Amino acid sequence: MTSDADRAQTLLKDLRASIDNLDAILVHTLAERFRCTQTVGRLKAEHNLPPADPAREAQQIARLERLADESGLNPEFAKKFMRFIVDEVIHHHEQFQK
Amino acid sequence: MTSDADRAQTLLKDLRASIDNLDAILVHTLAERFRCTQTVGRLKAEHNLPPADPAREAQQIARLERLADESGLNPEFAKKFMRFIVDEVIHHHEQFQK
Repeated sequence: MTSDADRAQTLLKDLRASIDNLDAILVHTLAERFRCTQTVGRLKAEHNLPPADPAREAQQIARLERLADESGLNPEFAKKFMRFIVDEVIHHHEQFQK
Repeated sequence: MTSDADRAQTLLKDLRASIDNLDAILVHTLAERFRCTQTVGRLKAEHNLPPADPAREAQQIARLERLADESGLNPEFAKKFMRFIVDEVIHHHEQFQK
């Protein structure tokens, strides 16, 4: 007979396999996102546009909050996540402008 | 005739549309990932398993570095990203154990 602890271990293993697949999606999506923002960075550097764009960032944050709400992601976490990504992007753009 | 600046604006708009689509993927994937880790958290709480699991985290980080390398994402950023996500997950799990 399968014990509760065994069933929990099987379920844990299945969940971790899903998490690993989702992480592969996240890494590849982030890689593609940075490819886009690096092209944006090059464009901005070529046309002497400022690296940060507060109006665009405000729009992105508002949209992300809506998407987070729809998908059941904590909107505070979604904002923190966007800040984390945008900080990295600005760091890339600043390197282009040097 | 289209000026260089106009062409840059069109390209910028296209890139931003791609970035918005990629962000929607990221938000929905993160939402699903947290659904999985919340179930993991409940399982761990029910079976008195510790919230953090350093061996599993080390495996995840090694795998993420490999995926980052394959996809062209900076491996240092991939590690920072995983730390950011895992910290949030541990924070959720601690709330379950209270």
